[in-house]
Amino acid sequence: MTAHRRAVVDLRSDTVTRPTPGMRAAMAGAEVGDDVYGEDPTTRALEDHVAGLLGHEAGVFLPTGTMANQVAVQALIPHGGELLCADDAHLVSYEAGAAAVHGGITTRTWHSPDGFIDPAAIAAMIRSRGGFALPTDAIAVEQTANLPGGIIHPLDRLTALHTIARRAGVGLHCDGARLWHAHTTTGTPMHVYGRLFDTVCVCLSKGLGAPAGAVLAGPHAFIANARRLRQRAGGAMRQTGMLAAAGLYAIGHHLPRLADNHHHAQLLATALADTAVVDPHRVHTNIVLLDLTTTPWTGPAFTAAAANHRVLLVALGPHHVRAVTHRDLTTNQIRAAAAVLQQLLAARPADTSRPDQPDTAPATRPGESTS
Amino acid sequence: MTAHRRAVVDLRSDTVTRPTPGMRAAMAGAEVGDDVYGEDPTTRALEDHVAGLLGHEAGVFLPTGTMANQVAVQALIPHGGELLCADDAHLVSYEAGAAAVHGGITTRTWHSPDGFIDPAAIAAMIRSRGGFALPTDAIAVEQTANLPGGIIHPLDRLTALHTIARRAGVGLHCDGARLWHAHTTTGTPMHVYGRLFDTVCVCLSKGLGAPAGAVLAGPHAFIANARRLRQRAGGAMRQTGMLAAAGLYAIGHHLPRLADNHHHAQLLATALADTAVVDPHRVHTNIVLLDLTTTPWTGPAFTAAAANHRVLLVALGPHHVRAVTHRDLTTNQIRAAAAVLQQLLAARPADTSRPDQPDTAPATRPGESTS
Amino acid sequence: MTAHRRAVVDLRSDTVTRPTPGMRAAMAGAEVGDDVYGEDPTTRALEDHVAGLLGHEAGVFLPTGTMANQVAVQALIPHGGELLCADDAHLVSYEAGAAAVHGGITTRTWHSPDGFIDPAAIAAMIRSRGGFALPTDAIAVEQTANLPGGIIHPLDRLTALHTIARRAGVGLHCDGARLWHAHTTTGTPMHVYGRLFDTVCVCLSKGLGAPAGAVLAGPHAFIANARRLRQRAGGAMRQTGMLAAAGLYAIGHHLPRLADNHHHAQLLATALADTAVVDPHRVHTNIVLLDLTTTPWTGPAFTAAAANHRVLLVALGPHHVRAVTHRDLTTNQIRAAAAVLQQLLAARPADTSRPDQPDTAPATRPGESTS
Amino acid sequence: MTAHRRAVVDLRSDTVTRPTPGMRAAMAGAEVGDDVYGEDPTTRALEDHVAGLLGHEAGVFLPTGTMANQVAVQALIPHGGELLCADDAHLVSYEAGAAAVHGGITTRTWHSPDGFIDPAAIAAMIRSRGGFALPTDAIAVEQTANLPGGIIHPLDRLTALHTIARRAGVGLHCDGARLWHAHTTTGTPMHVYGRLFDTVCVCLSKGLGAPAGAVLAGPHAFIANARRLRQRAGGAMRQTGMLAAAGLYAIGHHLPRLADNHHHAQLLATALADTAVVDPHRVHTNIVLLDLTTTPWTGPAFTAAAANHRVLLVALGPHHVRAVTHRDLTTNQIRAAAAVLQQLLAARPADTSRPDQPDTAPATRPGESTS
Repeated sequence: MTAHRRAVVDLRSDTVTRPTPGMRAAMAGAEVGDDVYGEDPTTRALEDHVAGLLGHEAGVFLPTGTMANQVAVQALIPHGGELLCADDAHLVSYEAGAAAVHGGITTRTWHSPDGFIDPAAIAAMIRSRGGFALPTDAIAVEQTANLPGGIIHPLDRLTALHTIARRAGVGLHCDGARLWHAHTTTGTPMHVYGRLFDTVCVCLSKGLGAPAGAVLAGPHAFIANARRLRQRAGGAMRQTGMLAAAGLYAIGHHLPRLADNHHHAQLLATALADTAVVDPHRVHTNIVLLDLTTTPWTGPAFTAAAANHRVLLVALGPHHVRAVTHRDLTTNQIRAAAAVLQQLLAARPADTSRPDQPDTAPATRPGESTS
Repeated sequence: MTAHRRAVVDLRSDTVTRPTPGMRAAMAGAEVGDDVYGEDPTTRALEDHVAGLLGHEAGVFLPTGTMANQVAVQALIPHGGELLCADDAHLVSYEAGAAAVHGGITTRTWHSPDGFIDPAAIAAMIRSRGGFALPTDAIAVEQTANLPGGIIHPLDRLTALHTIARRAGVGLHCDGARLWHAHTTTGTPMHVYGRLFDTVCVCLSKGLGAPAGAVLAGPHAFIANARRLRQRAGGAMRQTGMLAAAGLYAIGHHLPRLADNHHHAQLLATALADTAVVDPHRVHTNIVLLDLTTTPWTGPAFTAAAANHRVLLVALGPHHVRAVTHRDLTTNQIRAAAAVLQQLLAARPADTSRPDQPDTAPATRPGESTS
Repeated sequence: MTAHRRAVVDLRSDTVTRPTPGMRAAMAGAEVGDDVYGEDPTTRALEDHVAGLLGHEAGVFLPTGTMANQVAVQALIPHGGELLCADDAHLVSYEAGAAAVHGGITTRTWHSPDGFIDPAAIAAMIRSRGGFALPTDAIAVEQTANLPGGIIHPLDRLTALHTIARRAGVGLHCDGARLWHAHTTTGTPMHVYGRLFDTVCVCLSKGLGAPAGAVLAGPHAFIANARRLRQRAGGAMRQTGMLAAAGLYAIGHHLPRLADNHHHAQLLATALADTAVVDPHRVHTNIVLLDLTTTPWTGPAFTAAAANHRVLLVALGPHHVRAVTHRDLTTNQIRAAAAVLQQLLAARPADTSRPDQPDTAPATRPGESTS
Repeated sequence: MTAHRRAVVDLRSDTVTRPTPGMRAAMAGAEVGDDVYGEDPTTRALEDHVAGLLGHEAGVFLPTGTMANQVAVQALIPHGGELLCADDAHLVSYEAGAAAVHGGITTRTWHSPDGFIDPAAIAAMIRSRGGFALPTDAIAVEQTANLPGGIIHPLDRLTALHTIARRAGVGLHCDGARLWHAHTTTGTPMHVYGRLFDTVCVCLSKGLGAPAGAVLAGPHAFIANARRLRQRAGGAMRQTGMLAAAGLYAIGHHLPRLADNHHHAQLLATALADTAVVDPHRVHTNIVLLDLTTTPWTGPAFTAAAANHRVLLVALGPHHVRAVTHRDLTTNQIRAAAAVLQQLLAARPADTSRPDQPDTAPATRPGESTS
């Protein structure tokens, strides 16, 4: 196995993309104002555009998807209330405990063996007011679902869940960090997804390739409250128009090309299909989840071995590894990465312990989020 | 169906018991002091006695089992940390969201169809430090498990969980509100259960029949911190010796008779066995859980109908009802209650809508805890 | 200076009193029920009686004054809101940070050199809604004011503050742990004080001499919410009737004798008047605050020296010491304590370092509350 | 009084400045990476540069000064601990209650009639561990002090406070949002101020004119913890290099010109000196505080009247108005604004109620921060 000074193929996350020259130019030329006073025209344009895309009344720009999720659940759920979500949801597992710390929110979680929501099972978890138990205030769903491998919850299940939540008087939030990807794969319009939820947030810095930012959408009164909560969270920046310009550019220029990333994920998954660590039918979008349970590899060992061959992955627990395709990767890079992973899976952990260019593998700083 | 001015049979909870003359005398004669200054001798005696029973270094008296649980998890888990527990655990579902509000504690929950813990499944939920996800700090287990019907987790499963938690460096708390009952049924000494956990609390006002109070046991440093957290919670009372005297009396005089309650629960379960709403083999202690799914009854309708016939139950969700036996009930009262429930199950909801003495059924105040 | 096996004179707090035989008998004979179900008749009687005394609609029994204060401010102030109070108020300084931890409540505090409230200064601190700053939600006042030396805020100042709060739409809470004492000294009826506030709490275990408990009074809807918050705090005990009986007994039998304690405080203050560490005119109730600034003593050194002579005090900071009279002390004990303190003040710290019976001075456990 | 289509003079805050062409070019050309993985070289350069300027080991970039303050106090103060600060500090009054909500931090506040810190008075507020009261964990000081009018705390007072805090074992944080301005006026190097504190934050979007961002500096371990808290707050953005480039550009190109803003503030203050609403000697930096107490104006009425004449101010409470100079204003604009304010102060509120171009005055969105 040789590497010939091959460039690193960074499959850790689609958050690693860098702004393109066109995006940089759009940012540099953006009209701006003080957004805390509500006077940044580009930010307002982005908020209105995304709210419209999602079929909602209003939107608010936030620095990150994490803050968008946290502000959403704090606005939907009174202090001391309850949220239901998947036990591997970003909201509960990758946001440093913010819902409990900032909102006093109790989380009860469901475990889905295949990653898909089961509306009837969620319905059985809902507790109504007036009884002895803490009543349920809201439910959160990730679309696409990140940890299960970027899978797409089917529209009929989401619709069933919408009906359940509405009847129970329970709020419904969509962590739509990668809702763009579900839309791209299924063709379902963003607003069809969006209107199934009381509140939806989308991320601009993942597949879309903007440097930072997220938009949370919902009813006018909800968004007014979200602005107050954004201030408390320390997310009320000033001339956000340049970041908003990147978001608008990304929606205009990068969203139409998102399917390329999905094609690359299929390419990777298909190349590894024979190894039984991945089922290409489970690869719906730009995430390829490798299940190493039946191999001699652990997740960390496999990730380290791949990094030694200049392919960067993220280990998720002891037996799983995640590869994410994104717009900064070429088809050739994907092919090269697939070859490396194939060879590693054909080998054993001990065979691969010799790094070829160990000094060039970027260090991962632990303790922060995966997205 | 007639009632003939029969006295109410209160099966709502074993918390409804009233102190006996002997207990009242013990309370009236108790030596006391200011417990905030650590000078109440009876409270110290109770704390030491219970800590000893549970095989732990030290104990602290608290006004309720809820405060004992909350202080325990706040002492075990740093602010912003994570607790794993069953999704129907008292800690997460019946304590008004206190863990999240007071401790900033994120809860991820497991769902157990049969109510028993599955150590391997819990092990798979634990997340270690140094990764991207919020790491797990502690696990809580109820023994006996209230909502599943007072069932007893087998000692080998608890031992397996102990080993898992120890290896993972994760705290293990036992909500032993009714640990007395597990001990009574299995004969396993309290300290054998107790030593499997880092911290254990027991309640004095449930089966034991004291008017109020709980004891939390653990290592000396943990208990010192628990005293500080008790002060923050508003649980640092003064001359607690009279309540502590009730607890000591209950352990000496009522604990040896706890088996009577279990016998009564079996009597009730056996009487209803033919109706298929209860399996006597699932009745391990003093709780009889009726599953009405296969009947025309809802939980609230059945509870209301029983109350009209002077038998008080608690509805747990739409299809389940709980009956709890306790020391203030006679065998004849259990038989009478069984007869009422048999008749109701043989009838249909509409048939029973006529209350016989509606004015005598005590009103339940909603919004507080079931225990 | 000799002590001749004199009994300890415990002036640390009026919380150290022990229940009398009459109170014990009242407790032992109390009718009780499960208060979580709202079925304890003695507790209900106490709640109604105290609410009536205070001129309020409803009351709720809680285990401690700390929980009463905390539940009150959490019910008056939305999560994330603001409370104004004195910087030495029990609520902000002696309740282990509970308002911030449990209620997310920001405290802005005033400093009163003489301990009395200054309504105009408080009015200037109030911030209204709609501006940039965090708006003020409530104000809390202690009557009597503990740390300033048990002083009584004059009725006209409280009335002025009431008007200010009402006009500003800001809640007003009275920490009336020792409101009984203000009433006893001034003759102002409890309800005249009570009606100046939206919410009032009184303590049963300080001057009144019950072993534990407090009552919080206010409007019906407020009290209903307070019950929910009491449950979250872990303060929802079961057969509280025995504690409530102690409270009713104390109001009936001990409240009329509270003036004796005030007489004792005057006796002590007058005896020390020549030393210039106390001004008897500042002693309004049962607390004597010694200001050691002009002496060679520090608070801790003086407290330790007094303890060596079997007089127990509490040091409040580096230069102040508090002596509290209560119903378990005789006039002779007060005279003996006065003599000890006079001698110490006439001496210097170094002269008094020889303890006479050091082993009999009870250890104070640090880290808990002073009240 | 006529306005002749004069452009708006926006004196509300120095946050309203827009990035210059040079700054935009620097941003557009910035080298970037994923900062959550620690791979954004421009962000690292900014963090290191600012840490060096402030004489500290390490720095971390955050989206806002509010988040920088909040992360700092959460890292300095354990959950449930205590912070001392001025009662008009941004941290306690303009950050939506975040310290209490996110950190469970109790605030005790001092009131300074002249705005300057009084080290001895602060020392007297500190409470040590081991006693009954909640111990003090940290003190925060604003330099310059915003609400008192941008005044500069003298170096000897800060040094005295440093010594007090060090001896007491209490943390010391500087909210240095406008520390640049103190440095510009006094010539005291940034690191001389910086080293007096355990932690310091500076803002890039106020006088410096960057669109967003702040840097928090302190010891390595503190900054590592701050990164974790930033993640919880939702402030861990991705390609932050473009914002960091603006910050580096601002420090290089705008900081040297900050004195111009101070000159403008003096110009404005001197022009109004005769009106007795401002004392030019109290104007230390770029903030001019008008005290309208002796005039017939209220703050809101004066602000509205000025807005009608195209001069934008911020009302701070009923009797004060703030004008802030910044780099987007010319000397002629300052002179024009001074003329408007002079005329208004010479008139009476009723005389000025006719707006000349009411439709052009930008609406202020209430409920967000002033900075």
